[in-house]
Amino acid sequence: MPLLIPKPIHFGPFLVTSQVFHITPLSFALVNLKPLLPGHILVSPIRRVPRLSELNHAEVTDLFMTVQRVSRMVERIFNASALNIAIQDGKDAGQSIPHVHCHIIPRHKSDLDHKGGGDKIYEMLDGEEGNVGKHFWERESGGFPKPDADEDRKPRSEEEMLREAEWFAEEMIKDTVSRQSSNNSSS
Amino acid sequence: MPLLIPKPIHFGPFLVTSQVFHITPLSFALVNLKPLLPGHILVSPIRRVPRLSELNHAEVTDLFMTVQRVSRMVERIFNASALNIAIQDGKDAGQSIPHVHCHIIPRHKSDLDHKGGGDKIYEMLDGEEGNVGKHFWERESGGFPKPDADEDRKPRSEEEMLREAEWFAEEMIKDTVSRQSSNNSSS
Repeated sequence: MPLLIPKPIHFGPFLVTSQVFHITPLSFALVNLKPLLPGHILVSPIRRVPRLSELNHAEVTDLFMTVQRVSRMVERIFNASALNIAIQDGKDAGQSIPHVHCHIIPRHKSDLDHKGGGDKIYEMLDGEEGNVGKHFWERESGGFPKPDADEDRKPRSEEEMLREAEWFAEEMIKDTVSRQSSNNSSS
Repeated sequence: MPLLIPKPIHFGPFLVTSQVFHITPLSFALVNLKPLLPGHILVSPIRRVPRLSELNHAEVTDLFMTVQRVSRMVERIFNASALNIAIQDGKDAGQSIPHVHCHIIPRHKSDLDHKGGGDKIYEMLDGEEGNVGKHFWERESGGFPKPDADEDRKPRSEEEMLREAEWFAEEMIKDTVSRQSSNNSSS
């Protein structure tokens, strides 16, 4: 089933409509160009502001209810046992696109032992591997990686991201249906 | 002015009332035993559950409104330019105390250059230096550090943390007063 996203969605300066798998009145969730681990997604407010402090009450509430909802879904479908949830709130904290975004990364026991341990996720997040802004710029410039790019992780194709976004969107609907039916049966 | 915290506050198994500088109906903010950088604080729901997914709508909303409010305060008083905001949601994501807690760490340009760059904050967060649970256990056991503890950062005294908590509490009140007066003048 193709996704019905009612209007173009921008993440910073980038058009990301085909990567969006969930949308609310004030927030959206998108799949990543280069996920650090399977299921690594981003949640943003629709309004493009760089800092968390600039969001109003309704936007903060909607953003984190969305974070909770989509994080349950990725944890479930990737059979994960934990999640890293992180916001680089401003450039000096590692933010690469001036638009509030919350990283959600499903985790498994010992998943990064081959990289040197679980805390490597943060090095990856702040290093070249997690530079979301650079990945988008590379796509805009025709996909030519900059010379210092990590060579082992290629940006994913539009087609691949669209398939994942559709999968996640369907799984979000399953969560909603199962919550509604458990609410009905308990009432 | 001594802080008036109406009831004992627990962070996981630990009594932390004297470290708490802000309390809402469903959340609290506390100063750290061993801050990774000046102004590194934690925000938790009052209800002791390990995972974000276990919080109800009101708790999620209250938690992140509190995160936004206290993060504005620490950024202002530490003259910071950015913040790292992170939740280790579950043991396999680095959580050391089974009680939801959001780290807020004020950042400055080049503040960790001497440690090897800004992304070192995450290594610190997930390594020995950021092991909040271990720091608390050491205090409970009379302050004897475990043999593998980082030796250069001593847990702070109750007195020192209480002074900081009082300072932060006063600054929270200033923020409230200044927001109220700007609301009044704009109406």
